[in-house]
Amino acid sequence: MTVSITPLGGLPMIRPGDDLAALLLASVDAAGGVVDGDILVICQKIVSKAENRLVALDPDDPEARARLIEAEAVRIVRRRGDLVIAETTHGFVCANAGIDLSNVDDGYAALLPVDSDRSAHHLRNALRARYDVDVAIIVSDTFGRPWRLGLTDVAIGVAGIAAVVDLRGTADDRGRILQVTEVAIADEIASAAELVMGKAAAVPAAIVRGLDAAWFGNGSARDLVRNPQEDLFR
Amino acid sequence: MTVSITPLGGLPMIRPGDDLAALLLASVDAAGGVVDGDILVICQKIVSKAENRLVALDPDDPEARARLIEAEAVRIVRRRGDLVIAETTHGFVCANAGIDLSNVDDGYAALLPVDSDRSAHHLRNALRARYDVDVAIIVSDTFGRPWRLGLTDVAIGVAGIAAVVDLRGTADDRGRILQVTEVAIADEIASAAELVMGKAAAVPAAIVRGLDAAWFGNGSARDLVRNPQEDLFR
Repeated sequence: MTVSITPLGGLPMIRPGDDLAALLLASVDAAGGVVDGDILVICQKIVSKAENRLVALDPDDPEARARLIEAEAVRIVRRRGDLVIAETTHGFVCANAGIDLSNVDDGYAALLPVDSDRSAHHLRNALRARYDVDVAIIVSDTFGRPWRLGLTDVAIGVAGIAAVVDLRGTADDRGRILQVTEVAIADEIASAAELVMGKAAAVPAAIVRGLDAAWFGNGSARDLVRNPQEDLFR
Repeated sequence: MTVSITPLGGLPMIRPGDDLAALLLASVDAAGGVVDGDILVICQKIVSKAENRLVALDPDDPEARARLIEAEAVRIVRRRGDLVIAETTHGFVCANAGIDLSNVDDGYAALLPVDSDRSAHHLRNALRARYDVDVAIIVSDTFGRPWRLGLTDVAIGVAGIAAVVDLRGTADDRGRILQVTEVAIADEIASAAELVMGKAAAVPAAIVRGLDAAWFGNGSARDLVRNPQEDLFR
C-alpha cells in the first residue's frame, strides 16, 4: 500500500490564544478532509504559540538566553561554547532545552508545550467531533543527534497511534526470531512529514495517509524517552 | 505537492553474487517503472548479501560474535553487557558495528557494505541505463540512538541527492535569518521508506516520489557523519 504525505498550508500566522483546532480544521476542510487512519503531523512551533508558550527575552541582555535555557533544563548533558545540550522536564534531550528563537517575534523565545501529548489529544478530539473519524496526531519538533550531522524531525506529542512498535519476537523472513526491532514509528512519521513542511515554507502541518492499521491505538511521546538509568549517553 | 512512498516487493531472496541491479530493475518494471526525481530506497541487508558481505560465525563459539564486532569496529564508544556501541570504518556509530544476524542464514552474520555510496551509484547507473531517467538511490539501515527509544532507519549510502540540505541563512517566515537548519533529508527519506518496508514483510525497497527537485544532485553518506573532533558524544 502506498503511503502519501500531503502538506497542509493555508494556516494564518498563529498567535497566543488562537483556537488552533479550529484553524487546523479549516485547513483540513480546504484540503478535502481526513479519513480514518490518517495522521495529522503538526510542528511544535504553532502549538507553542497557540498555547502562549512565548517568553520575552531582553535583546540587550546577552545572558538572558542562557538563563532561560538553565531554567527550562532539568539536566545539562553537554555544553560547548554557546551550544547547550539539555534534558527537558519531558525527558527529551535536545539543544537549548527546546527553546527556539526562529519564527517568533523579535524579543521573544518559544518554549516547548507543557504536555504535547495533551495538545495532540485535544486536536484529535476536535477532528473526531468534526468528521466522526479516528485521526492520529503527532506534534513534531526538529532535533539534532549525536554522531550524525543534520537535524531530523521527531515526535514530542502523540495521540491515537503507537509511538514505538515492538516487533520483538516476530519471525523474520527466514522464520527465525528477530533480535531487536522496536521501531520508533512516531519519529519516522515526523521525519517523513518534515520532507513536505520545510522550515521557511509556512507549511506547519501535513497529512500522512496509508500507514499500517495495526499501529493505531494508544501511544505517548513518553514511550520514546529512554529511561535515564538505561541510557549510556546521559 | 504530495509525496508518495510505495513499497517495492517481489524480490527473490538475495544471495551472494546476485545481480542486485537486474533484480531491482525487474521489480521496478513490475511496479510501473520510475520517473525523474524518484528515490529508490534499498535496505542495507540485500546490498550486503549481493556483495557477499556474509561471514561464517561458529554457533558453538560464544565469543565469535564479540570478536567479529571488535574486528569491524575502529572505536568502541560504549559497552554494557552484550551491548556494544561502536564506530565503523565509515564513521557510523551503531550497535555491534553494524553486524546483523537477522534475515541471514544460521551460522552467518552480515557486515555493512564496504562502500554503500558506491553501491548506490552502481544501482543509479543501472536505472539510468534502463529508463533514461535520473533516480536517486539511498541505502538504508536501522540504527538506535541515544536518549530516545526505538530504532529508526537512516541513510548509509547515497547517490544522486543531497544527504544534508543546508538552510542556514534562509529567511524564516518572519523574514529573519534562521539560526541552524541543516536538515538530514537522506535520513528522513530512509525513515519515511521504512514505514512501508517492515522488518518481516519481505519488502526490502521502496520508491519515494514527489520530493523537492532542488535537493537532487551530488550527495554522500559521508556528509552525514559528524566530525569526531566536533562530536560531544564520541
